[in-house]
Amino acid sequence: MDNDKRPIELIATWDTLQRIFIRPEDEASRKTLLKYMEQILFGLHDFLNTHVGVTEEISLKDLTKDFKDTVINKEPEKKLANVITDIIDQIAPKAVNIASPYFVGHMTSALPFFMVHLKTIITALNQNINKLETSKILSVIEKQILAKIHRLIFNKGEKFYRKHVQSVDTSLGAFTAGGTTANLTALWVARNKLFSAHKNFEGVEAEGIAKTMQACSVDRIVILVPKRGHFSLKKAGGVLGIGNKNVIPIGMDKNHRIDLNELEKTIKELSSQNKTRIAAVVGIAGATETGLIDPLSEIAQICKENSIFFHVDAAWGGPVMLSEKHAHLLNGIEQADSVTIDCHKQFYMPMTSGMIYFNDPLAMDQIAYHSNYVNRMGSVDIGIKTLEGSREANSLILDSALKIMGSRGYALIIDHGIKTAKEFAKEIKKRENFQLVLEPELNIVTYRVVPDDFELKLKNAPENKKKEIENLLNDINIKVQRKQREQGKSFVSRTRFKISKKNTTQSVVLRCVIMSPMTNIDILKEILDEQQDIFKRLDID
Amino acid sequence: MDNDKRPIELIATWDTLQRIFIRPEDEASRKTLLKYMEQILFGLHDFLNTHVGVTEEISLKDLTKDFKDTVINKEPEKKLANVITDIIDQIAPKAVNIASPYFVGHMTSALPFFMVHLKTIITALNQNINKLETSKILSVIEKQILAKIHRLIFNKGEKFYRKHVQSVDTSLGAFTAGGTTANLTALWVARNKLFSAHKNFEGVEAEGIAKTMQACSVDRIVILVPKRGHFSLKKAGGVLGIGNKNVIPIGMDKNHRIDLNELEKTIKELSSQNKTRIAAVVGIAGATETGLIDPLSEIAQICKENSIFFHVDAAWGGPVMLSEKHAHLLNGIEQADSVTIDCHKQFYMPMTSGMIYFNDPLAMDQIAYHSNYVNRMGSVDIGIKTLEGSREANSLILDSALKIMGSRGYALIIDHGIKTAKEFAKEIKKRENFQLVLEPELNIVTYRVVPDDFELKLKNAPENKKKEIENLLNDINIKVQRKQREQGKSFVSRTRFKISKKNTTQSVVLRCVIMSPMTNIDILKEILDEQQDIFKRLDID
Repeated sequence: MDNDKRPIELIATWDTLQRIFIRPEDEASRKTLLKYMEQILFGLHDFLNTHVGVTEEISLKDLTKDFKDTVINKEPEKKLANVITDIIDQIAPKAVNIASPYFVGHMTSALPFFMVHLKTIITALNQNINKLETSKILSVIEKQILAKIHRLIFNKGEKFYRKHVQSVDTSLGAFTAGGTTANLTALWVARNKLFSAHKNFEGVEAEGIAKTMQACSVDRIVILVPKRGHFSLKKAGGVLGIGNKNVIPIGMDKNHRIDLNELEKTIKELSSQNKTRIAAVVGIAGATETGLIDPLSEIAQICKENSIFFHVDAAWGGPVMLSEKHAHLLNGIEQADSVTIDCHKQFYMPMTSGMIYFNDPLAMDQIAYHSNYVNRMGSVDIGIKTLEGSREANSLILDSALKIMGSRGYALIIDHGIKTAKEFAKEIKKRENFQLVLEPELNIVTYRVVPDDFELKLKNAPENKKKEIENLLNDINIKVQRKQREQGKSFVSRTRFKISKKNTTQSVVLRCVIMSPMTNIDILKEILDEQQDIFKRLDID
Repeated sequence: MDNDKRPIELIATWDTLQRIFIRPEDEASRKTLLKYMEQILFGLHDFLNTHVGVTEEISLKDLTKDFKDTVINKEPEKKLANVITDIIDQIAPKAVNIASPYFVGHMTSALPFFMVHLKTIITALNQNINKLETSKILSVIEKQILAKIHRLIFNKGEKFYRKHVQSVDTSLGAFTAGGTTANLTALWVARNKLFSAHKNFEGVEAEGIAKTMQACSVDRIVILVPKRGHFSLKKAGGVLGIGNKNVIPIGMDKNHRIDLNELEKTIKELSSQNKTRIAAVVGIAGATETGLIDPLSEIAQICKENSIFFHVDAAWGGPVMLSEKHAHLLNGIEQADSVTIDCHKQFYMPMTSGMIYFNDPLAMDQIAYHSNYVNRMGSVDIGIKTLEGSREANSLILDSALKIMGSRGYALIIDHGIKTAKEFAKEIKKRENFQLVLEPELNIVTYRVVPDDFELKLKNAPENKKKEIENLLNDINIKVQRKQREQGKSFVSRTRFKISKKNTTQSVVLRCVIMSPMTNIDILKEILDEQQDIFKRLDID
C-alpha cells in the first residue's frame, strides 16, 4: 500500500503543512482532490454494492489483532491518497454494510445519496452554531427549521410562529447530539421546572438536589417511564441526580402499550406520599424494540389532571407526522410538554443528530447558561440553552432535505415501511415454525422461531414445565440470530421481553426494522427462508 | 435559481425516491454527483477566498427577514443542484468565514482540506459506534486511538496498554459530542465514585442524591473550579444535581492561574464541615479566555493529599502534548484522574468532536448502562459507558489525521501559534494606545485599547475615580471590537475579567486566538492597525 511513500509529499515540513490549510489554486491539485472525493463516493459505494451481505465474518480476536499499537508516530506515515485507499480496501470490508436492504436489525439504513453532499457542505463551512459570531445565517436557518418542526408537532397557528420563529427571547427547541441528550434535556427542564426559584430558593439548578430537598420538603423525585422506554431515560435519571431507581417503569397492557391503569394507580400512590414529587411522565411514540406507540392523548389527559410534565420520546416515530396517512397514530403528541425526535433515524440524516422541542417557548429558560466571552446575557446565541456546547449546523441538512423531498417524499418512505411491516407480519403468520410476537403498528416487526411441535407443547405444559420450554425456545432464537449474523448475508437483531402478561420469564424475540425503501417483502421472505434453514440445521435435543 | 425546475427530476414519486437511495450505476449519474461535490469543494472555497473578510455586514433584522416561513412544503421545492447553488450563492456569503486568517476571535479556524474528505468518508460509511453490530472494525479503531491519546497523556508503559488497548472489560476513555459533554462525563464519574455502592446503598447513580444525603450523612456536594474555568463546568454541576452554586470558583493568583493557597484553604474549610463532600477539583490546561495553564502538578499534589478526584479540562491545550518543545507546559496532567480534550479545536477536526480520558481503566464502570436490544451485559459495545447514545465514527478522522501529519505536523502548527502569540504580545507592548493584558503562555493573547493619556490618568486617579475611568475604557474597547466586527475584515473577540487582584471591577479585554497556521504577525499587525484606526475615529469625550 505504501509503495508510493515519497517523503516529499508527506506533511512533515512547515511548507507542506501550510499548503494543506490553503485552498488549492491550481487545476492539478483540484483535480487530485476531486479524484479522492470520487474514490470516496464510488469506491465505498462499489464495496457496498459488491458486498450485498452485511459484513465479512471475522472474530473479534482476528479483528483486533492489527490494532494494538498505541504509540503515535512522530513522522507522517501516509498520504491522504493512501489513507483513502486503505479505508476503502482494508477498513470498509470489515465495517458493517448498514446500507444493505438485508440489514434490518437496527435503526440505521441506507441514506439518500444527497445526504453525503449536504454533510460535506456542513463540514466545508464548519460553522459553530453555539454562537452567532461563528454561524450567523446558519443560526437563523436553525431557528426557522426548529419552528417548522415545532409547528408539525404542536400546530399552534400562524400568529404564534410569526412571533417566535426568529425571536431572540424564546426558544422552540434545539438540535442535540442525538436522542439520548434530547431526552436528557427534556427531563433536565422538567426537573428544573418542578423546583424552580421561589422566595429564598434559587431553584434546583443552582441549589442542587440536597438543598432542594430541605427547601421544598421533598425526599424523593421520580420519573415514570413505560417499561419499553429507551434506556437513555433511565440514564437521564442517573445523570440528573434523581437516581435511576427513581425512574419507575410502568408496566405494559396486553397490547404492549403503557398500562394506563397502572400509570394512574402509581401516580395516586406516589402523590399520597407527602414528600415524593413526580418530575415527569414519559410516553413513547415508536418504542425502540417494538415500534409501538403509547396512547398519547390518554397520558396527556392524566398528566394534565395531575399537573405533571409530559415528555414524549418520538425519537423513532416523530417523522411519521409527515405522512398524511399515518400522522393520526401520534395524536395527542401536541399536548406534550416536550418531544424528542432523532434526525439520524427516520429523517435519514447521517449520524448523529437529534432534536428536542418544548410546547412552552420559555421552558428552555430553565437551562440557560451565560458566559463573558460567548453567550452573553441578552445575546441571540443558540448555545445559551443547550446541553451541548460547540455544535455543527446539522439543521441545514434537515432544512435542505425537506426542500429536496418535501414532506411527501418522507411520507412515501414511511408509508412503505408500515405497509411492508404489515405484509411481513402476514407472511410470518403463514409460515410454519415462526410466531408473530406483536402486530406491528409502525415499521418494526417482532417475531420468533417457534417449532410447530413446541406450540402444542407450550400450550399443554404444566406451569412448572413452561419455563423450561421457554428457555429452550430462547436458546433456539439466540442461535438462529447469531448464526445468521455470522453468515453475513442478512442481519436481524434480537431483544428480550415478556410476550404476555401471564409469562413469568422474558422471551428472546427477533426484531426487524424496515427502514430502507429498498427493503421489500421479497427480501424479507429471503431472510425468513435463511432463518428457517438455519433452524432446521440446528442440533436441538 | 429554480428556472430548471422540471417536476420529473424532483423527488416526488416512489420511483425518484427509490433512485436516491440506490447507488448510481451509470456513468452519467456518477458524473453529475461528482460535479456537485466539485461545486461544494471549490465553490465554497472560492467564496472563502474572494471574501477575505469575515462576513458580509448585515443586521440581524435583515438577516432573518427571509426565514420566517414555518410551514413544511408538501411538494419538493428544489433539486439537489439548486440546493447546492443556493447554499453557495445565498447562504455562504452570510455565514462566517471562520477559515480566514483574519478570523482570530474564537477557537475555530481553517481546517486542513483533507478533513473534509475524511468527514465525507465517515458520512458515507455512516456507522454507529454505539454498538459493535453497527460499527465493527470502527469500534476497534476507536479503542486503539483512545489508547494512543491515553498514552500521550498518562504514559503508563507498554504493558499497561497492551493489556487495555482492545480489552472488552476496561475503557480508557470515550469520544463525546464535544468538550461540554466530556467535562460533564468526567464530573459524572467523579460524583459516582465519591458515592459508590456500599452495604445497603446502591450508589448515587441508582439511588439519587436525596437518598445519598441520608445514606452517607452528607448535605452538600461541591466541585472546585478555577474562576477562569469554562462555563460547561458550572453547567455540569447544575445537570448532575449538585447545584451550580456548589461549583465553587477558586480565585486567580497574580499570574491569572488558580490560586493554590485559596484552593488549599477552601479544601480545608470545606473538609472541616462535617456534611460537605468535595466531588472534584478541576484544573485548566489552556483557559478559554486566556490560554493559560494552571499549575497541574501542584493541584495534583493537593488532590492526592486530600483524596479528591482531579479533573483537567485540556479541551484547548491538550494537543500541545504533541509538541516536544512545549509539552512540558502540561506537566502534571499525567496525575489527573480525568482529562478532557477537544478534537475540533487544536486537533483541527470538523465540528464537533470531543474526548474524555480516565487514568483508571475501570473508572467508567461508574456510568455503565445496559439494555436488552443493544449494549447487553458483557458485550464490547462502546456505548455502554458513554453519556451519548448513537455516535458517528469521528475517531477514524483523528486516527487518519495523525497518520497523515504525524505528531510532528501537529507540533509545527502548535509551535507556530505559540511563537506568533509571543511576537504579537511584543508588538502590542510597542504600540501606543494598546496594553498587553496578560503575557501569553499558549496561542491566546489578551490585550486592550488604553489611550496613552489614560494610562497616566489611571495611575494618578484617586480610588473613587478609577472605576469611572475603567468604565470609559470598557466602553472604548466594546466599541472598537464591535466596529471591527461590523467592518467585516477581521474578527477579534472580547471578554471581561479582573485584570489585577486590586481592581474592583472587571475590564473588557480583547482576545485573539492564533489557531490558523496562515495567521502570522503581519496579519496581526494589520488587525491592530485597523483597531487603532477605529479607535482614533471614535467620538470619546
